[in-house]
Amino acid sequence: MKIKFFAVGGTIDKVYFDALSKYEIGESNILDILKNARVNFKYDISSLLKKDSLDMTNQDRSIILGAVKTDPCDRIIITHGTDTMIETAKVLGIVKNKVIVLTGAMEPAKFKSSDAIFNLGSAVAAVQTLPHGVYLVISGRIFKPDNVRKNRELKQFEEKM
Amino acid sequence: MKIKFFAVGGTIDKVYFDALSKYEIGESNILDILKNARVNFKYDISSLLKKDSLDMTNQDRSIILGAVKTDPCDRIIITHGTDTMIETAKVLGIVKNKVIVLTGAMEPAKFKSSDAIFNLGSAVAAVQTLPHGVYLVISGRIFKPDNVRKNRELKQFEEKM
Amino acid sequence: MKIKFFAVGGTIDKVYFDALSKYEIGESNILDILKNARVNFKYDISSLLKKDSLDMTNQDRSIILGAVKTDPCDRIIITHGTDTMIETAKVLGIVKNKVIVLTGAMEPAKFKSSDAIFNLGSAVAAVQTLPHGVYLVISGRIFKPDNVRKNRELKQFEEKM
Amino acid sequence: MKIKFFAVGGTIDKVYFDALSKYEIGESNILDILKNARVNFKYDISSLLKKDSLDMTNQDRSIILGAVKTDPCDRIIITHGTDTMIETAKVLGIVKNKVIVLTGAMEPAKFKSSDAIFNLGSAVAAVQTLPHGVYLVISGRIFKPDNVRKNRELKQFEEKM
Repeated sequence: MKIKFFAVGGTIDKVYFDALSKYEIGESNILDILKNARVNFKYDISSLLKKDSLDMTNQDRSIILGAVKTDPCDRIIITHGTDTMIETAKVLGIVKNKVIVLTGAMEPAKFKSSDAIFNLGSAVAAVQTLPHGVYLVISGRIFKPDNVRKNRELKQFEEKM
Repeated sequence: MKIKFFAVGGTIDKVYFDALSKYEIGESNILDILKNARVNFKYDISSLLKKDSLDMTNQDRSIILGAVKTDPCDRIIITHGTDTMIETAKVLGIVKNKVIVLTGAMEPAKFKSSDAIFNLGSAVAAVQTLPHGVYLVISGRIFKPDNVRKNRELKQFEEKM
Repeated sequence: MKIKFFAVGGTIDKVYFDALSKYEIGESNILDILKNARVNFKYDISSLLKKDSLDMTNQDRSIILGAVKTDPCDRIIITHGTDTMIETAKVLGIVKNKVIVLTGAMEPAKFKSSDAIFNLGSAVAAVQTLPHGVYLVISGRIFKPDNVRKNRELKQFEEKM
Repeated sequence: MKIKFFAVGGTIDKVYFDALSKYEIGESNILDILKNARVNFKYDISSLLKKDSLDMTNQDRSIILGAVKTDPCDRIIITHGTDTMIETAKVLGIVKNKVIVLTGAMEPAKFKSSDAIFNLGSAVAAVQTLPHGVYLVISGRIFKPDNVRKNRELKQFEEKM
């Protein structure tokens, strides 16, 4: 069993630069999280993009789609900014023979109280148990891209009514 | 969607008592972990036992079995010590109409580098996606009770050869 | 022995708001840090301002000076943004009968790898051992306001050459 | 300015071994703590002993005394178990031309809520500001060895009445 991880940016990988008093996207935290979790499966991690979710373009989504299509692994997890995770998931919907899980975090992984580790744990289980398709795994839930929205106030993903 | 959590002890809930220079089982960490993860599902948490895995008796397993059987929820997660998690899973095998996931941790949840948060994230996804049955979800994997063993040296669970 | 803490903002108390993908100054972390440290002295904490260091005005510094002057406690620690900590320290130089220590952090206290706890530990020791005067305690050092500068690249405070 | 650190064991460096469900003393955490704190002074760290405080013998204290005496640095911090820290401090009382600070922790440094980082921050400030002598720096306070005791119930050090 092998899982391929693509990091494309988002809050999960934000770091803090004091000099500018702002957050920027740093290195992916996936490797550290998997090591602490002492996972017993093969994996490969690629840092594909370092984009804030709101800055992600159609071209960026084409890059992600191409990488997902050509990767030999059929279980794929993408760490992505939460604001446009749904849009990227929809673009990936044309990939039919893989399980693709998008996840991310409401707080940077470097925060003590971040949801990043939990979400990555959920994504790892989901990518092994779900049938082929594209899913968002976050807020402790599994969502299909056409039936989910981000609730900014609650900092949660939820079903569309 | 609702998940019932039973805490029965184990390393995941160990705390450190300086006075005696040893570890003992403290309060369950499940609630804090679910709050930080900002989960979007209903849940109920019961602290059933506070047992070190090696001290768990047949009577303890009967208590767990009774609680699982009588609980109205059909998605159940049990946090359990890792040394005898497999034995308890086997006892629970007679429950046929529920998804039961056992998880735990190799390091106490209060450690910075603990696997507890990741494992609970995995368990939460697994309990929503797996068919009725009893599973161990740990080391980033989903195991059936009759085909798994703990590898102490690697601090991982693995398939039996 | 009693110590008075004033929180006036800065990186140390930054939190992250995903909706806007930016940081803002949240509640002071002093109380949580002192509790975890199990300190054995009396203290009082006042949240005076929530200002980014670069936004601090002369009027803000007057407010801080007034609060420091009128406080009955003669050991005072101020958590402050690092960019203009030196300026505020100079304004406080006219207070002659107190030990005043300014500290802060290069990374928000909510980060796992933050220097906030260490710096507050240093400040607490320094305010008990130093003679009356105004000091910056950060980067593991004790500085006088007229002989220190912030080195942005190294994320350290250092003596002026 | 240079500080010499000696790690001799104690709770501060305890790790958790699941296989045996007990703690043991692991590597010193001093280097990691100083790096995160971005300290701006020279330092050298020696791991001298890995002893539980209660197991420390007169011979162990002779080893510590010898190392402190012969070290060329005159600012010395020793991380030590809390149960017999006072005894070791008294043995070191014959060293007259150095500032010697003993510190430690009530919870292992690897715990999220540990007092280790705070205590080390206090020790670093204290060793730069105090006159020659031997001190315990813990619980946010500076104590002389002949006027301090450990209060196990409160998990604090306090003055003798």
